[in-house]
Amino acid sequence: MSSKNWQADKRHWMHPWTHFDSFREEGSLMMTRAKGARVWDEQGKTYFDAVGGLWCTNIGMGREEMAETIAEQVREMAYANPFVDISNVPAAQLARKLSELAPGDINRVFYSCGGSTAVDTAFRLVHFYQNCRGRPQKKHILARKGGYHGSTYAAMSITGKSGDKIPEFDYIQDSIHHLSCPNPYRAPNGMDEQQFCDYLVEECKQKIRELGADNIAAFFAEPILGSGGVIVPPEGYNRRIWELCQENDILFVADEVVTAFGRVGHWFASKDLFGIQPDIITCAKGLTSGYQPLGATLFTDRIYEVISTGDADRYFASGYTYSGHPVACAAALKNIEIIERENLLQRVVEVGAYFEQRLQTLRDLPLVGDVRGKRFMMCVENVMEKSSKRLFPESTNIGKWISDRAEQNGLIVRPIVHLNVMSPPLTMSRDEVDLVVERLGAAIEQTQHDLRKAGLYTPTPQPMIA
Amino acid sequence: MSSKNWQADKRHWMHPWTHFDSFREEGSLMMTRAKGARVWDEQGKTYFDAVGGLWCTNIGMGREEMAETIAEQVREMAYANPFVDISNVPAAQLARKLSELAPGDINRVFYSCGGSTAVDTAFRLVHFYQNCRGRPQKKHILARKGGYHGSTYAAMSITGKSGDKIPEFDYIQDSIHHLSCPNPYRAPNGMDEQQFCDYLVEECKQKIRELGADNIAAFFAEPILGSGGVIVPPEGYNRRIWELCQENDILFVADEVVTAFGRVGHWFASKDLFGIQPDIITCAKGLTSGYQPLGATLFTDRIYEVISTGDADRYFASGYTYSGHPVACAAALKNIEIIERENLLQRVVEVGAYFEQRLQTLRDLPLVGDVRGKRFMMCVENVMEKSSKRLFPESTNIGKWISDRAEQNGLIVRPIVHLNVMSPPLTMSRDEVDLVVERLGAAIEQTQHDLRKAGLYTPTPQPMIA
Repeated sequence: MSSKNWQADKRHWMHPWTHFDSFREEGSLMMTRAKGARVWDEQGKTYFDAVGGLWCTNIGMGREEMAETIAEQVREMAYANPFVDISNVPAAQLARKLSELAPGDINRVFYSCGGSTAVDTAFRLVHFYQNCRGRPQKKHILARKGGYHGSTYAAMSITGKSGDKIPEFDYIQDSIHHLSCPNPYRAPNGMDEQQFCDYLVEECKQKIRELGADNIAAFFAEPILGSGGVIVPPEGYNRRIWELCQENDILFVADEVVTAFGRVGHWFASKDLFGIQPDIITCAKGLTSGYQPLGATLFTDRIYEVISTGDADRYFASGYTYSGHPVACAAALKNIEIIERENLLQRVVEVGAYFEQRLQTLRDLPLVGDVRGKRFMMCVENVMEKSSKRLFPESTNIGKWISDRAEQNGLIVRPIVHLNVMSPPLTMSRDEVDLVVERLGAAIEQTQHDLRKAGLYTPTPQPMIA
Repeated sequence: MSSKNWQADKRHWMHPWTHFDSFREEGSLMMTRAKGARVWDEQGKTYFDAVGGLWCTNIGMGREEMAETIAEQVREMAYANPFVDISNVPAAQLARKLSELAPGDINRVFYSCGGSTAVDTAFRLVHFYQNCRGRPQKKHILARKGGYHGSTYAAMSITGKSGDKIPEFDYIQDSIHHLSCPNPYRAPNGMDEQQFCDYLVEECKQKIRELGADNIAAFFAEPILGSGGVIVPPEGYNRRIWELCQENDILFVADEVVTAFGRVGHWFASKDLFGIQPDIITCAKGLTSGYQPLGATLFTDRIYEVISTGDADRYFASGYTYSGHPVACAAALKNIEIIERENLLQRVVEVGAYFEQRLQTLRDLPLVGDVRGKRFMMCVENVMEKSSKRLFPESTNIGKWISDRAEQNGLIVRPIVHLNVMSPPLTMSRDEVDLVVERLGAAIEQTQHDLRKAGLYTPTPQPMIA
């Protein structure tokens, strides 16, 4: 574990979410190779990557076709200035393709390099839109606790995950408001799903009354919350919140950085899964399956019409050197072609049902409080006590115990405090589903044993009647 | 001009800095191929790209070696999760290399996907640092008018270019302060360079007294201002401002997105050109020569020491899916290897002197008020009247007239209102310098003729004594 590369990493690279003390002790696990859903570390050990990189390796790694497409574009034109009125072929073609795939009149594309900048751009586009239409006071933002929207200053301010909004950082104050997390498993006061949904919609209405619809610019929401805990909101919630936004002239920004490009069986989840027509969709990750950094902010012709007319000299003073990077866009086009050709959306629908069903069997384990998610976007929530849903102390970091055990078993699952999250490549087979569920189940059982030995877990007897 | 790609671009891609009205009329110039410093449009016309993409194609486009390196990394491991404690070889090796190249104790690297996120991260790192050391009130930011720092909400708030801070967007208010632009050509009241420098330093001292050093977190500065007009500050300015920051416990953030990786003849300009040791350096562009989207925020061991100790559970809750992207990092390593092997820094020093000297001859033209910059980072400022330095009305957009004419002549120069900016690949030869200066000179003369015909230019007789 102390190769020159490992030492260089430890000495020089501050990783995202570095835990300083443990990093100082242990450094990193150095990965060297990736093929399909499998990755290899420096010692040659193989893992099944059930996290799919970071919700992103949708078509799987190491495809020769991707290497060739990317190399060909590097040879032909590795870079092109995207500013003002210069363009390049892959970016233009991808903009057309994304407009075809996105629902309704979402026909306009603004490129960036990932999800955070896609969200940051959406935030700025919302300002631009409201100012252009003469509504400069319409600027408050609604979002949710548990929502994750990225890591720029603005994107992290919209984020509502308590574990990420740590006091060592500063955030935009006053103008961003976080409503309750729509997690049915943690509904208050024993509400059933329908009651919980009513409660959430009422809370949103109340917030709109409080702030005044004339002061609210946009609602930012992941249709299924990702790193906040793979939370599928109560039945009808997305649709009702969206309708509320429509009624109150509030833009609905669907953050589909995780849910788009097949993760839950559709190009985009907003319309196909939840019947909503967002004004803006942010996407990244599955857009290139992680082969290249790329993000996009998609928006409606209606918004474009407002911002592009009225003032003859108006221009959109925002954008990135690497907006519409030709190599990244060529990779995205090929990635989308592969998803289409191999019919991966249909595969996610079919194998996803099996994945859900098999993972649900882990509920029999004493530590497993909840198994939830949709198709290829799943998570297990671990609890100290099932009946009360009481959690382990955060300091126990149970998800990490389990992911460490899983890693020993050759399985990568992502620990997020009490959770273990999975978002495998869309190519995952039924046999691989079995392998994931077996290895994860074993890791949870081993952890139960470890925790008991360490005096950190004393199972409560289950009540006689469930 | 109306191929399917051109139509797709016009219908679907909203470019950075799109001028809505002219874009609706004319659409984009579609580029299809790039080799060395040359680019080809869809009609097969060739241009010498004196802008180097967007200050970025330092080693020139279309290198087979880059295509092979990139393809090889795609085959081996196209993506790796960078979060917490998982790593990959190219990112680790590049972090070591950047630490070797960066001045002094700058030995820590945080990756993002471009300059904007490198600056956004620096902004957040400054917050993190000041909070960790128990100075939460130390948060005000100093920057300059004319400074450009990127396009996220935070980065654009730090930006001080009036043409980019348009009223259709919102910005962080109150905590970011813009001092005077250190442009010697536009020094007030006929000050000479030394007087102007004293004036700027005094202004900065005054601002520190006004806000209180205990309330100021950081000074963000490009050592040579880029898109604000290729402004080399007065002799001694960078050093004296940096010393002032040192004395007042204000972090000095050198935004070297443009100036690093050879553009002005050094890996980094801060130390080698201006004798300053920044606390944080942001870089991107030349880091990969535009072949891949990549940015980095480099910072000192001193900062790392402060943020990584004290609280056992502390973690850096920020970062990107594509932080340390293995393909982008592999491209950066190869790019740096090529700059070293071909001795491009020395070439920039030598050919840069010739470029400066040849461009200065354009001062003989009536429209040319100033020719300035350093080595491979140059610009021409066009004026209505040389003696008074009076500008054309902004609406004339003289830079665009000239760049349009240059484009006809097969030369790409970047128009920024009154300016034409150049940042060619570092491989540019003396013959190519001659070609650029000839074509640009012809474009300026043609424009003078065009403007006179259009009734937009009436030359004032030059005074008898200069």
